[in-house]
Amino acid sequence: MSGSETIAVLGGTGNEGGGLALRFAHAGYPVVIGSRDAARAAEAASKINERIGHSRTRGTDNAQAVTGAQIVLLTVPFAGQVKTVEPLRDALQGKILIDATVPLVPPKVSRVQLPDGGSAVANLQALLGGGVRVVSAFQNVSAHHLADLDHDVDCDVLVCGDDGTACEKVIELVEAIGLRGIYAGTAGNSAAAEALTSVLIAINRRYKIPRSGIRITGLPVKEKL
Amino acid sequence: MSGSETIAVLGGTGNEGGGLALRFAHAGYPVVIGSRDAARAAEAASKINERIGHSRTRGTDNAQAVTGAQIVLLTVPFAGQVKTVEPLRDALQGKILIDATVPLVPPKVSRVQLPDGGSAVANLQALLGGGVRVVSAFQNVSAHHLADLDHDVDCDVLVCGDDGTACEKVIELVEAIGLRGIYAGTAGNSAAAEALTSVLIAINRRYKIPRSGIRITGLPVKEKL
Repeated sequence: MSGSETIAVLGGTGNEGGGLALRFAHAGYPVVIGSRDAARAAEAASKINERIGHSRTRGTDNAQAVTGAQIVLLTVPFAGQVKTVEPLRDALQGKILIDATVPLVPPKVSRVQLPDGGSAVANLQALLGGGVRVVSAFQNVSAHHLADLDHDVDCDVLVCGDDGTACEKVIELVEAIGLRGIYAGTAGNSAAAEALTSVLIAINRRYKIPRSGIRITGLPVKEKL
Repeated sequence: MSGSETIAVLGGTGNEGGGLALRFAHAGYPVVIGSRDAARAAEAASKINERIGHSRTRGTDNAQAVTGAQIVLLTVPFAGQVKTVEPLRDALQGKILIDATVPLVPPKVSRVQLPDGGSAVANLQALLGGGVRVVSAFQNVSAHHLADLDHDVDCDVLVCGDDGTACEKVIELVEAIGLRGIYAGTAGNSAAAEALTSVLIAINRRYKIPRSGIRITGLPVKEKL
C-alpha cells in the first residue's frame, strides 16, 4: 500500500519540509505542500515535480492542504508551531499529525532549551487532545541529507507518540523514504529527539562538519516494530 | 600521561560505577571506589583487582575517596545525586566531577522525566558553583557493555560541560578506556544524554534487545576535540 496516502507538509516551503516533501513524492506518495502563502507553496511544489519528473506534488494554503490529506507533517519553526496548528484543530481530527518541531530558541540554537513541560511535541498533543494522533519524528535528520536523493541518509529517526498504531504507521512512512524509524516511547520521550538537535548543531560547530546525525546501536539490522 | 590521575568512583559498588571502575583500572589508572559503606567499597575493589590481575583499586567511604583523587566520577542513582555530593562540596573544589547521573524516576524508567530546569547535571553544576568543574558523561553506556572487557562498546559518550578544558580532559579519559567521547555542548545540553537513557530503555523493551546505544554519525573516524 506504499504511496497510497496523501501527505500534507505544512511548512513545506522551508528546507526541512521541502526535503521531506521531495522524499515522499519521490517515493510515490501524493504530496500537498502547505504554506501561509499558497503561491509560494505552488512554486515549491512545481520545483519538486520538475526534480522527480512526475506531477505528484501540489501546493496550497495550510488549511486546504490538511483537508485533502490523511497524514499531516508539521515542519514549521518552533515559534510558529502552535499558531500554525491551532486553527486547524477541527480539520486534523482523526488524522495523524507528524510533528517534526524542534524547540530551537535563536540565537543560541546549539543550546538545549526545552519548553516548559519538557517536550514541544508532548505539549502539542496535550493542546490538541486525543482526537489528533500526534507522532514525533524527523527532528534529527538534516535537510541537506533529505535533499540529496543520491545518497543514503546516515541518521535514524526516533518515533515517539502515545498512539502505538499511529507510531507504527509513521515508522512505515519513514522506511518508505529510505530511512530507519525506531519506536522510542510515548510523546514525552520526544524530549530526547528535540534536545538532540541542539546537540548535533553543537557537534557540527565544534568538529567543523556539515551534518552530524544519530544511530541507535544494538538493533538487528532490519528490525520491524 | 595516560593512567596518571587517581580516579574516585562514587557509587562504584553499583553496576554502572563498577563497570567504569573496572575499565579505568584495566586501562592503568589508580581507582578508588567510594561508597557510604567502606567495607562494601573495599570488597568491590578487591574483585576488580582480582579480575584485572593488578592491585590498582582500593575502596573507602565517599569523603576519603574524593580526598585522594584528581578526578571524581559520580555514578549513584538520581535519588542520591545531591545528597551524596553536597557534603563533599569543599573536598571537590578545583576538581573535575564527572556526573553520570540519569534522572530516572521509577517505576516508569522508560519515560523521559527530566528535572525542573531540564538537566540533572546542569542543576548540580549550579548547586556546586564554578569552583567544581562538572562534566556530564556516560549516561548512555550500558553497565553490561562496560563489564565485558573482551568487546568494544558500540556506544558513543556525549560529553557536556561549561568548562571546555575539563571537557577535553574527560574526552581523553573516555578514549583511554576505549570509547569515543564527543563534545556535545554546555552543561545544559546534558538534557539530551539524560533523556536518551529512557529512550534506550524504551527501545530495549520494544525490540526485546539487551542493550541499545547511540552513535553520532558524520564525524571523521578518529576525530579529536
